[in-house]
Amino acid sequence: MDRRSFLTKTALGGTAAAASTLAAPAYAEGKRTLTMVTSWPRGFAGLADAADKTAENINAISDGKLTVDVKHAGELVGAFEVFDAVTAGQADMYHAADYYFVNQHPAFAFFTGVPFGMTATEQNNWYYHGGGMERHHELGEIFGIKSFLAGNTGAQAGGWFSKEINGPEDLQGLKFRMPGLGGKALGHLGVSVQNLPGGEIYQALASGAIDGTEWVGPWSDEKVGFQEIAKFYYTAGFHEPSAGLSAAVNLDVFNDLTPTQQSAIEISAGHANVWNLSQYLMNNADALSRLASGGVKVLEFPDSVWDAFGGASQQVYDEFMGDELFKSIYDDYVASMRSSSGWISQSSEAYRAQRDRVMGG
Amino acid sequence: MDRRSFLTKTALGGTAAAASTLAAPAYAEGKRTLTMVTSWPRGFAGLADAADKTAENINAISDGKLTVDVKHAGELVGAFEVFDAVTAGQADMYHAADYYFVNQHPAFAFFTGVPFGMTATEQNNWYYHGGGMERHHELGEIFGIKSFLAGNTGAQAGGWFSKEINGPEDLQGLKFRMPGLGGKALGHLGVSVQNLPGGEIYQALASGAIDGTEWVGPWSDEKVGFQEIAKFYYTAGFHEPSAGLSAAVNLDVFNDLTPTQQSAIEISAGHANVWNLSQYLMNNADALSRLASGGVKVLEFPDSVWDAFGGASQQVYDEFMGDELFKSIYDDYVASMRSSSGWISQSSEAYRAQRDRVMGG
Repeated sequence: MDRRSFLTKTALGGTAAAASTLAAPAYAEGKRTLTMVTSWPRGFAGLADAADKTAENINAISDGKLTVDVKHAGELVGAFEVFDAVTAGQADMYHAADYYFVNQHPAFAFFTGVPFGMTATEQNNWYYHGGGMERHHELGEIFGIKSFLAGNTGAQAGGWFSKEINGPEDLQGLKFRMPGLGGKALGHLGVSVQNLPGGEIYQALASGAIDGTEWVGPWSDEKVGFQEIAKFYYTAGFHEPSAGLSAAVNLDVFNDLTPTQQSAIEISAGHANVWNLSQYLMNNADALSRLASGGVKVLEFPDSVWDAFGGASQQVYDEFMGDELFKSIYDDYVASMRSSSGWISQSSEAYRAQRDRVMGG
Repeated sequence: MDRRSFLTKTALGGTAAAASTLAAPAYAEGKRTLTMVTSWPRGFAGLADAADKTAENINAISDGKLTVDVKHAGELVGAFEVFDAVTAGQADMYHAADYYFVNQHPAFAFFTGVPFGMTATEQNNWYYHGGGMERHHELGEIFGIKSFLAGNTGAQAGGWFSKEINGPEDLQGLKFRMPGLGGKALGHLGVSVQNLPGGEIYQALASGAIDGTEWVGPWSDEKVGFQEIAKFYYTAGFHEPSAGLSAAVNLDVFNDLTPTQQSAIEISAGHANVWNLSQYLMNNADALSRLASGGVKVLEFPDSVWDAFGGASQQVYDEFMGDELFKSIYDDYVASMRSSSGWISQSSEAYRAQRDRVMGG
């Protein structure tokens, strides 16, 4: 994903709309309506679904006392104006991927996904029982928001290439589209990193202006149609092993809600979190089968390339360690990841490997 | 786990209490209180936590309109009388592991965990986006309940042994405690399967009356103290690769609730589901470290033993295939598992293997 992915379609119209729609929170007969702005175009599979599910959950359990009115990207503000809109009180809450806001603070990346970081399962472990949610709140409070994980795409795919990548030397000079910290890491490996908006990637890849791209995963990638113009698909990637999505409420608005309404948001977000991850994992599986049977060569990067990704990612982290809060959250995050990953690999993953071996997958 | 684990402590007292506490659902001024009976002793880490969290969620979001009054095992009915209590209308809802009720119908096992079946992540994929929840409802309606997943222990450990298991021949004549379909499978391998209540296992293992036992996982097992009397711990097991917990409401009661109240139960259960799985995974990780550093030898079964587990498990499934509904749900379940597992192994698991290799775990 990319904070500029949807800008071409939505941002300008969104900004114009925002100016004429600013409104104070609505109150009427003890009822409260919250305006949720999102980074997703209306109807965008998976991402908009997670925002809609969060809102639908809140509406369903609040008996009319709390209603969320969803304004998708461009309907009130542009896709990447949602953070500013909520912190400024123009909107009551947003649904987005918090790593879009690394320019506000780089530690927001931990609540979506970071290179060589946690998987979705590990992130949930940290979030709900390892102090992660408290760090999310601590970070948000600096900017005047209260945030909750409210969706996850799962591990994003390594991406599409026009040739096989058999060693780090094959990355040299490659024109590849990858946003965020992952893109910074690729830059250290001689890749010419491109940050094209989502709507321009297909054409750039088709014309040869770029040699490859990452996007989300099989379900989302197939919808764009990358299989029509690139034949080498790497499933596992180093750059976003989890992609958590967040629902964040303006802190003054949140503090003004009743405890019942506050709980409705937190619990609705948690339900949307597991619901959305399951949605991606189920749909990715079916899409990958279709891609493979349609002629796409499904591959994994060789060890030498993973080694190069690792060294480059460490260089990127080192660039941020001067920030005290970043380092403090990084240390928590890595400690939790190291702790929970041991049990996972020795139990469910060891089990799955044996199940696949014994029962034939 | 085991349906008889808590019977010694709770069942008799529970039954006596039930007779004097039968009551119609309470109504007062538009407010509704549901009595939830559970299979867990009050305060039992993990399992009772999942029940309590489900109830707390419902209470927190319902603004006093729907209150769940939790009666843990023995407080109203015994641990394994909860299904009968709810289907008979003596209580409004239960929180339990549905495979306790395989005598009512063997297909209830799919909503907890089955030998060589889904992991928790795969089960959630099936449940929320592969038709699993609909099959859960279809099965429950036969008995007059509406069920929702509301917790998960994650993959249960292979268990504790007094010697290393280096081949299937080492299982011959072993006196081992394992309940459910897994126990039936072990029986096909020459194991003398014991179904001891939870409260008796420690003493049986200490005295040599049994040679080994499975229980739940490092966090729960450490609390019992098995590390004091057995030194070989197998982390991955074939018998319960997921252990989903369910909240089930009497169907007449559920249908009589408002849509808001119905949604409150469904969404609260979903939140408790991800919250509880994270709790187990986080706590298991820390407990496993303590067990290992305390001298327990942490092992994995060799391939030859897994092969034997596989053959024996297939024999057990074959025994149930004559039941049309069991076979229909089994077919759905296996198709979903095969579908979603491919993407998971090629994305997050391939990624984790590389992360551990490159970054050193």
